[in-house]
Amino acid sequence: MHFGTVAHAGTTRAAALTCDGWRALAAPTARHDADAPYAAASPTADLSAFLAAGGTLGADTPLAEVLEGATVRAPLPRPAKVICCGLNYGEHIRETGRDLPSHPTLFVKYADSLVGPTDDVSLPSGTDVDWEAELAVVVGATIRSADRETAAAAIAGYTVANDVSVRDWQYRTLQWFQGKAWDDSTPTGPVVVTPDQVDPGAGLTITCRVNGEEVQRDSTVTLVFDSADLLAYISTFTTLRPGDLVLTGTPGGVGVARDPKRFLADGDVLETEVEGIGLLRNVIRLTDHTA
Amino acid sequence: MHFGTVAHAGTTRAAALTCDGWRALAAPTARHDADAPYAAASPTADLSAFLAAGGTLGADTPLAEVLEGATVRAPLPRPAKVICCGLNYGEHIRETGRDLPSHPTLFVKYADSLVGPTDDVSLPSGTDVDWEAELAVVVGATIRSADRETAAAAIAGYTVANDVSVRDWQYRTLQWFQGKAWDDSTPTGPVVVTPDQVDPGAGLTITCRVNGEEVQRDSTVTLVFDSADLLAYISTFTTLRPGDLVLTGTPGGVGVARDPKRFLADGDVLETEVEGIGLLRNVIRLTDHTA
Repeated sequence: MHFGTVAHAGTTRAAALTCDGWRALAAPTARHDADAPYAAASPTADLSAFLAAGGTLGADTPLAEVLEGATVRAPLPRPAKVICCGLNYGEHIRETGRDLPSHPTLFVKYADSLVGPTDDVSLPSGTDVDWEAELAVVVGATIRSADRETAAAAIAGYTVANDVSVRDWQYRTLQWFQGKAWDDSTPTGPVVVTPDQVDPGAGLTITCRVNGEEVQRDSTVTLVFDSADLLAYISTFTTLRPGDLVLTGTPGGVGVARDPKRFLADGDVLETEVEGIGLLRNVIRLTDHTA
Repeated sequence: MHFGTVAHAGTTRAAALTCDGWRALAAPTARHDADAPYAAASPTADLSAFLAAGGTLGADTPLAEVLEGATVRAPLPRPAKVICCGLNYGEHIRETGRDLPSHPTLFVKYADSLVGPTDDVSLPSGTDVDWEAELAVVVGATIRSADRETAAAAIAGYTVANDVSVRDWQYRTLQWFQGKAWDDSTPTGPVVVTPDQVDPGAGLTITCRVNGEEVQRDSTVTLVFDSADLLAYISTFTTLRPGDLVLTGTPGGVGVARDPKRFLADGDVLETEVEGIGLLRNVIRLTDHTA
């Protein structure tokens, strides 16, 4: 089943994409944790709230009414943690002459960074904006110090992301964070596909296009650290909870590694696709920021 | 006035330290933002909830009952963003022979990393655990693309933190995050002091002691990027909101820079103090983790 968050009748809803179109998810019957982030929200207000309230994604997730005219939004609007892995596609690492890493390189974004599958990416003009097509993992259970098997069982599903990066800010200092965590910069979606429907370990084609020209293509089978590896590793030092998002890294072909370097311009159309999950299509909007 | 979060009668409360001892804060009258994180919590459940609900800290903050027998906890238990600056004490940077940086080096922790002023710091045995005494800034208003003046006005107060770091994990890869964001590793508190009561720009002595031996001493007057600089800079790329926490960096004297290197052992007592704010006293607990 494909799950997501949709806008409908002036609000948002957690929903599933069925033969009848988008249908609302029924409220989970699991016990609600009053201490959980966003516990105030209705448990069916969006997929973040649904997972935080104990909802699970699968063929037996109870559905409610059809949502006529629903439009798709960012599937996880409010993850407490958005953790990203760099340097994780083996073929790309080998072609740059480096050894495969023994540990994943990790950095973060915020929920504020995320936009939906057709939203604009809004960044300041005069910056070096680059693309990074990625497979993203949605956490479905609370884990800490998890082994690989436990981590694999904690995967609620997969979605598509583009870790759009502001390269000049990323390389101002040794730490990438300030080039990675811009508000409204990271397209996600369009849906979350459950692990029984799609297997990145078997190889899903991941592609990125700028104005229709393909700039990245690889297969998720070449990931050095797969989704379960990453969740287990991260859970060694911090707790992962339902609705958290882990971005698994990007293949070769980014603009900053080209000769000459190539960056995104205002009005460029950025398309990001993972086979079996879906397509993001976002327009780059570079405008004057005040600071 | 000194503000904090205390445990009292089986729950936690946002409170102020007065001549009568800890007194509860009255609920803020500001409009409650239902979309804000943790909007479900009572607005006086802790200082995070109080600030998120529109409460402000100052001499005129309305107080309620005296909380007999209250014990102090981490003042901000649930910041959505905990952003840290590295390499920010001028004397220390100059003594290492480096030029002063033109941009702050930024990385993050999570709310899960934070513990209170007398809580244990819990980390795995066999890791290289180091101290970093720091002044921390509590954000009191929502800002984006703020200039220095706006950023200065958005400072709710100051607290003390120790950015305890797991050096071997910090240096496993180029990105420090995995050595910085361990759950239950970062002491904070004991109180939040408002800017009318304490001025880091005038020079506050910051010290760190291990088992009574002083290992760090400097003055906040030597900070390269002061609190307003950091809030303004961060707000260029992401929104800061009431209750968010910014750690301003540590002076010289950390264990990893010593010859020979020196790290914390199980049972060590770590004391962190900023003049005019207060003292953290935490025991290091290094135990076997399962992963």
